[in-house]
Amino acid sequence: MGGNTFGRLFRITTFGESHGESLGVVVDGCPSGIEFDISKIQSLMDRRKPGSPFVSTSTERKESDIVHVISGVFEGKTTGTPITLILKNNDCKSSAYNDLKDVFRPGHGDITYFLKYGIRDWRGGGRASARETAARVAGGGVAMLLLEKEGISVSSFTKEIGGIKAEQFYKKHINENPFFMPDNEAAKKVAEKVKAVKKSGDSLGGIVEISVKSAPEGLGEPVFDKLDADLAKAMMSIGAVKGVEIGRGFEASKLKGSENNDEITSSGFKTNNSGGILAGISNGDDIIIRIAVKPIPSISLSQETIDEKYNKRNISIKGRHDICAIPRINVVAEAMASIVIADHFLRAKTCLC
Amino acid sequence: MGGNTFGRLFRITTFGESHGESLGVVVDGCPSGIEFDISKIQSLMDRRKPGSPFVSTSTERKESDIVHVISGVFEGKTTGTPITLILKNNDCKSSAYNDLKDVFRPGHGDITYFLKYGIRDWRGGGRASARETAARVAGGGVAMLLLEKEGISVSSFTKEIGGIKAEQFYKKHINENPFFMPDNEAAKKVAEKVKAVKKSGDSLGGIVEISVKSAPEGLGEPVFDKLDADLAKAMMSIGAVKGVEIGRGFEASKLKGSENNDEITSSGFKTNNSGGILAGISNGDDIIIRIAVKPIPSISLSQETIDEKYNKRNISIKGRHDICAIPRINVVAEAMASIVIADHFLRAKTCLC
Amino acid sequence: MGGNTFGRLFRITTFGESHGESLGVVVDGCPSGIEFDISKIQSLMDRRKPGSPFVSTSTERKESDIVHVISGVFEGKTTGTPITLILKNNDCKSSAYNDLKDVFRPGHGDITYFLKYGIRDWRGGGRASARETAARVAGGGVAMLLLEKEGISVSSFTKEIGGIKAEQFYKKHINENPFFMPDNEAAKKVAEKVKAVKKSGDSLGGIVEISVKSAPEGLGEPVFDKLDADLAKAMMSIGAVKGVEIGRGFEASKLKGSENNDEITSSGFKTNNSGGILAGISNGDDIIIRIAVKPIPSISLSQETIDEKYNKRNISIKGRHDICAIPRINVVAEAMASIVIADHFLRAKTCLC
Amino acid sequence: MGGNTFGRLFRITTFGESHGESLGVVVDGCPSGIEFDISKIQSLMDRRKPGSPFVSTSTERKESDIVHVISGVFEGKTTGTPITLILKNNDCKSSAYNDLKDVFRPGHGDITYFLKYGIRDWRGGGRASARETAARVAGGGVAMLLLEKEGISVSSFTKEIGGIKAEQFYKKHINENPFFMPDNEAAKKVAEKVKAVKKSGDSLGGIVEISVKSAPEGLGEPVFDKLDADLAKAMMSIGAVKGVEIGRGFEASKLKGSENNDEITSSGFKTNNSGGILAGISNGDDIIIRIAVKPIPSISLSQETIDEKYNKRNISIKGRHDICAIPRINVVAEAMASIVIADHFLRAKTCLC
Repeated sequence: MGGNTFGRLFRITTFGESHGESLGVVVDGCPSGIEFDISKIQSLMDRRKPGSPFVSTSTERKESDIVHVISGVFEGKTTGTPITLILKNNDCKSSAYNDLKDVFRPGHGDITYFLKYGIRDWRGGGRASARETAARVAGGGVAMLLLEKEGISVSSFTKEIGGIKAEQFYKKHINENPFFMPDNEAAKKVAEKVKAVKKSGDSLGGIVEISVKSAPEGLGEPVFDKLDADLAKAMMSIGAVKGVEIGRGFEASKLKGSENNDEITSSGFKTNNSGGILAGISNGDDIIIRIAVKPIPSISLSQETIDEKYNKRNISIKGRHDICAIPRINVVAEAMASIVIADHFLRAKTCLC
Repeated sequence: MGGNTFGRLFRITTFGESHGESLGVVVDGCPSGIEFDISKIQSLMDRRKPGSPFVSTSTERKESDIVHVISGVFEGKTTGTPITLILKNNDCKSSAYNDLKDVFRPGHGDITYFLKYGIRDWRGGGRASARETAARVAGGGVAMLLLEKEGISVSSFTKEIGGIKAEQFYKKHINENPFFMPDNEAAKKVAEKVKAVKKSGDSLGGIVEISVKSAPEGLGEPVFDKLDADLAKAMMSIGAVKGVEIGRGFEASKLKGSENNDEITSSGFKTNNSGGILAGISNGDDIIIRIAVKPIPSISLSQETIDEKYNKRNISIKGRHDICAIPRINVVAEAMASIVIADHFLRAKTCLC
Repeated sequence: MGGNTFGRLFRITTFGESHGESLGVVVDGCPSGIEFDISKIQSLMDRRKPGSPFVSTSTERKESDIVHVISGVFEGKTTGTPITLILKNNDCKSSAYNDLKDVFRPGHGDITYFLKYGIRDWRGGGRASARETAARVAGGGVAMLLLEKEGISVSSFTKEIGGIKAEQFYKKHINENPFFMPDNEAAKKVAEKVKAVKKSGDSLGGIVEISVKSAPEGLGEPVFDKLDADLAKAMMSIGAVKGVEIGRGFEASKLKGSENNDEITSSGFKTNNSGGILAGISNGDDIIIRIAVKPIPSISLSQETIDEKYNKRNISIKGRHDICAIPRINVVAEAMASIVIADHFLRAKTCLC
Repeated sequence: MGGNTFGRLFRITTFGESHGESLGVVVDGCPSGIEFDISKIQSLMDRRKPGSPFVSTSTERKESDIVHVISGVFEGKTTGTPITLILKNNDCKSSAYNDLKDVFRPGHGDITYFLKYGIRDWRGGGRASARETAARVAGGGVAMLLLEKEGISVSSFTKEIGGIKAEQFYKKHINENPFFMPDNEAAKKVAEKVKAVKKSGDSLGGIVEISVKSAPEGLGEPVFDKLDADLAKAMMSIGAVKGVEIGRGFEASKLKGSENNDEITSSGFKTNNSGGILAGISNGDDIIIRIAVKPIPSISLSQETIDEKYNKRNISIKGRHDICAIPRINVVAEAMASIVIADHFLRAKTCLC
């Protein structure tokens, strides 16, 4: 049974395969009366788009990510009815995937889709392709229009690539290097590593930090739909993500209570180890999320695998593909965070009588 | 709006406050015809119970966790109707909490519940108390009965407490030390640290690893209800959890693709870095989850805080409380994992025609 | 998979069998801060209770319907956490049902539960018993507390029993006869018919009209969760109900557009053929629902049936049972309507930005 | 918050306005491996299409209802991923609606959408247009492909139009007259009435009966998601429907228990007054549903109404529109019934262990 819908009140349903005609998203539950500035959504799509200046770490394919509005907007405003956004798949040389037709790429969903469904769209990963995240970004863009109206903002930066950490945080740097790291020095080291890894036919992973600023207090529902629980699901549902943490996260497990507790003053919390969430409910501080992004599984180095008949095969994935899901994944994570916040923003409207 | 239900097909709804009359769980969607061995569920409750041999790290209160079956079982078998399990709250000296009536304990949900609802049951944390997890364990016990019938097992061990790691993995050790660590040497060091921290009035956190063995291939739904996404939500919804990772998790972010990919042979995967999940769908290997547990926020050391009127207050939490949520939290994590697996086990029944 | 939860934001989960220990309801999503007047809920339970003055048409069993509050209420107010209400089953002579242990009563769910689950709690119908509706009334009572605060009221009367119609509408009469008909003359005829039918060992059905007054405009969501669609589901989910209509209902199918349309003036609609709902959204007028209640299937007249081994059997159901589900069902229908209205009242809070 | 999704396991999400670019449906949860015969879905769309031979009772507009498959189908089979079907809106002379821009048509959702959202797409009713049902038919077509594979069929006929009943049932007749009545004599009378009503500028309603044949026993979930409850919601969610009944329906309310109960024999039920559903669960007999369809509210006769500024207006709706929603609505009702049955067919797969 399908799991292609996310959210309770602000909910998105995505559809489409990487090499089908198009993919898209239906956003249901968006309030009426919001100015629908399509250029803002388009600019998010552009951040997800491959190509310069991110050429060093991203695919060189041309993906057409022009957002087409199909429904839900009238005279420039949302009407309360479902907003449907469609993205055409222009560059669909599925023949490029003929070699992979019956073989399972290691680290990909090829084998699990085959085992689950008995059939799979092998063209470029089908529904399991990272292309799927384009629809998330479009849907997240609608959420951001809502959040912006409420003065809430969602942003992200790259904390680490290939084990190289941003040791310092200069906000200004984030947009000064192609990896969106807040530390230009670290970014230089990453650039060198990327170059070497690219040459060797291998790939890299990293860590991204997402933050939500000016979210009101009281978002999140006890006890299962805690704000952090829904954020964790949202993040882990992104293909390459293998870990999620809130606030101090795994580091908190090494601290003492006296070190980890955020003391409270009449003007706010002294620290933000909790990442802005207490008992699953936002406390007014910045909401801080970090995600672990695995290295891209498509590598040109030879790997051992099997085909659909369980024959041994060796595979070396040529052609265009990213070296690292970062920084393209950053806007996807922002989009998912925005959807969760928008959803809980609406939910919170119903909790007080 | 409520978030007290978890699961799509196998779904639990929990209710109850720490110092109310009782708490409980309604399990809806459990198939009929399962032998309802209440002693198995009771033994899970006993693992969660405070007291010897875990006295060093757990509350000394007596919590009555006798499971009462209210509905859904007839002549020893599940009937397909909702299974309701109730746990009485015997030890309800809410007067012990009088001092905390109008003050917000740092690291707790006191302030966020107050901000969200304008009213809160201040007796022992109310709904935000760790006592709430008792109902999860009862519900998880029902899930385990279903999984057991299918040959699937869920277990856990403690990987780290207070920064002290289990450096080795001896399965046998897990039940030989009060911390359920697979390394008795590490456990000894933990015991000393616990002693010292207890004396100082502080508290500790740690890391727990949960594994699911013999889960069939094909569990998990693209693209939002991925198995790992639902596991992440399940884990992060547990009060003290601040991070979740699958397989190699955050470590994977530092690896190259050639290091992280699990090569495939006709007899299975060569490694299990993926933690048994590819593209959100189980691949037949062990499913591996790790959670970061923050230190217990209730400490007797003095902390700065405010009361409901925003006056400055100092707080020092006396009385009985745990030093560390581990090892009591371990069975809670197993319970939540079991519910997710049971849910997706049922969901998978509907995906092939 | 379970279907024991109803509602999206204001949602109830009911549990319990007619001859189990108890039955109950968990209400999740009720806003905080509502005065929890348990006596109001208890008085609804009493309306559902069998016995004088409804002895002529209702069971003479003593059902204990004292509402026990288990959770979600603190210092007399709702807290936003799940409200659990429990009703004990005192009068559980399941031995009275020994004869029916392996035989399927015509018109009951005995056979379908058996076919579906392979097991059934045969004591008094188990989960399929009308006793189940007690939990709905308790849950509906919570909804009514919310609606009352908003000035919305839900009421009902009996329009027809055994084919005898209330030909006139005197509001005052409704509480003057034991059938809650707005026409004492018709009620007299019904009383005679009930007497005769009781003597003959047969049973009766009828029609009930429910109305919601002062509901705000704008309740109901296009296109599937229309207010009338959710009301239809709510009503049809009550065991004995076989038909639902809104406003003029089936009669509207015989009218011309010019007769059925409600013309609009600046002071409101000229007529209310639509039953207060246009395109699935409330228009501010009274919301009018009618339900067709089938005759009670338990009759002492002999009927042909089979047992679990498909042997032919004759059955004559002796003992205590109602002649007609009306008027006890009336408050059940009010409860279900209240839950739908409360749910959509909360939903409507999120549709405008 | 949105209500544009229907179903639990087999679920459709529809989108689109009558005069937007296109409308469509996303079907999530359809099992993999089903032959996707688009011609079957197209033939359903054609039954919904206006024009000869239904010209007497239907709009003369040309609606383009060519189904475009966007996702979820690969090499002629369903893949388990979301199936998206798009229908372009070709004939979009929204200028024809300029006169109605600020005026509320009686019997339509114009006023309630305005009151709810503060904005409305006034072009042809927008989301509230009957055009919306095209997406339901497309989605229902997918459900029918699944049901057909299981040997289950869904059909319908017209029981009554404008108060003229089909007095006899000749299956053969259904396709011999333009109203799909099983009684050619009645159809003749209807034809005359339609002619007269058309001339007078008025409109008609009627009653449609839908039946599901060869549905397995055990479909439907106690206690809220009863099969009849979900069918009632499905039917009532269709714009023009004001009443729903199952089996004998409202007539059952006038019968005695001995008349209404279906006695059981080892070879099946003696009668089918229950309409194939007992206690909300299918019993293996034909499932019988009837719906009351109100007269089309768009009439050329003058009606009193108001505009958005509450000024008094008179309205006479000229141009192309149907005289009666029947027979175009018949296939819509079949589609909704198919979706409910497909949903419960999948749900039933999970109820036995």
